Amino acid sequence: MAANVIDGGQVRNKQVLLKDFVTGFPKESDMLFTTSSVNMKLPEDSNGVLVKNLYLSCDPYMRIRMSKLLRPSYIDSFQPGSKGETVFVSAASGAVGQLVGQFAKLMGCYVVGSAGSKEKVDLLKSKLGFDEAFNYKEETDLDAALKRHFPGGIDIYFENVGGKMLDAVLLNMRIHGRIAVCGMISQYNLEEPQGVHSLMNLVYKRIRMEGLLSFDYYHLYTKFLEMMIPQIKEGKIVYVEDIAQGLESGPSALVGLFSGRNVGKQVIAVAPQ
Amino acid sequence: MAANVIDGGQVRNKQVLLKDFVTGFPKESDMLFTTSSVNMKLPEDSNGVLVKNLYLSCDPYMRIRMSKLLRPSYIDSFQPGSKGETVFVSAASGAVGQLVGQFAKLMGCYVVGSAGSKEKVDLLKSKLGFDEAFNYKEETDLDAALKRHFPGGIDIYFENVGGKMLDAVLLNMRIHGRIAVCGMISQYNLEEPQGVHSLMNLVYKRIRMEGLLSFDYYHLYTKFLEMMIPQIKEGKIVYVEDIAQGLESGPSALVGLFSGRNVGKQVIAVAPQ
Repeated sequence: MAANVIDGGQVRNKQVLLKDFVTGFPKESDMLFTTSSVNMKLPEDSNGVLVKNLYLSCDPYMRIRMSKLLRPSYIDSFQPGSKGETVFVSAASGAVGQLVGQFAKLMGCYVVGSAGSKEKVDLLKSKLGFDEAFNYKEETDLDAALKRHFPGGIDIYFENVGGKMLDAVLLNMRIHGRIAVCGMISQYNLEEPQGVHSLMNLVYKRIRMEGLLSFDYYHLYTKFLEMMIPQIKEGKIVYVEDIAQGLESGPSALVGLFSGRNVGKQVIAVAPQ
Repeated sequence: MAANVIDGGQVRNKQVLLKDFVTGFPKESDMLFTTSSVNMKLPEDSNGVLVKNLYLSCDPYMRIRMSKLLRPSYIDSFQPGSKGETVFVSAASGAVGQLVGQFAKLMGCYVVGSAGSKEKVDLLKSKLGFDEAFNYKEETDLDAALKRHFPGGIDIYFENVGGKMLDAVLLNMRIHGRIAVCGMISQYNLEEPQGVHSLMNLVYKRIRMEGLLSFDYYHLYTKFLEMMIPQIKEGKIVYVEDIAQGLESGPSALVGLFSGRNVGKQVIAVAPQ
């Protein structure tokens, strides 16, 4: 993370640096907040533009890049469902989940989301239009919770968490169900990811499970905007953000993602508009 | 398993019965071989046909049906690759694997198979036309073995074994690779299946993983025969069978599947032709 604040003619450069590769849960002390003074004046004959950052995004995938085994990074994406199908979204009030759930509702699906607090569950049902939602932290048996919400099974699972939730979902998928794998936040802090044990359900139920990265879909971005902007203007798609103030709050905001402290998409406001 | 042997005018009915649900490796003693005498004469005005069984199939999936948790059963299927891609087939000399490998070769793919003995590895390379093959029991590091055989990665994996092999394959898949999941024989004897830990590779590499059951493709069977019969007549597709003699050998043949004793598709000859 880096942000520049222009202070008169001078430029002070604030930075959050990763001290060392992280194992397990990230701690604020894994990161270092520093300030240095830099001359960032554009040369007089330059056509360049000096950009003032207003917000930085803060997302679970960042944790992956903090591990020693550098893996490819990825960013938000989405995959709406089809008419009349049942859809389950995990981490449903998060940056991606809240949109996926609303897209699925627009497509006429029955949509249930899971999240980690009563506040988030309420948000899903009241503001984000989910048909149902539950707090996974209050469920001792995820399989039973899914059976309660999907007595006929799940057609589409939008996977954001992995681990035990994925195992429980595999037990509750319908035949020819589909699983879009966007992320597995429950696994990013583990030295070794938890094992997923129910994969034979892919065969029993002929399930398609497919990973996605938004990079592959940039060519559809214009089309996406055409579809989405009217929906946003009409208030049919809303977006909940959790804005932390100041780059100084960056480490705490990032760490908070893994205990689910954020409500909605975590953003860091690094400069006044 | 059941078979009827007509003995003069009388009918002796040989049967292999499952004594009780099985946990762990199946043992011959889990099954009971019995003979009883039955009158199976057709009524004089019947249009029925009395069928004499010659062979019984003996397949890993049967183990699944011997567990207390009855899961859907399934039978052989196939999924050929596309031109010029790299294909890995596990349990490659088995009932399904040997065909899948040959189909992939017909489609112009580079095909590597894994099996559990030198004899099978030789068979894959000499008789079944695989480009390469290796004995997974001799590999201490499956990831390294796959990297050796697929320095550029795997486009298509035909999954027959599950567990550690699947984990190693996920590490070696190419971007946008595809995994057809036919079975997971390494898991059927375990009380709890081994966990698969590398599933985030589905996201990193946007892999599609899909289970299949032949039931879904019966409507293509005529087309399949049209395509395949000429190939068989021309000797371009061959099939290796391991024929055990007599229904009495059924339990031993079934148990043998899980130590890989069979070479090729296990069949039990229950009556002379």
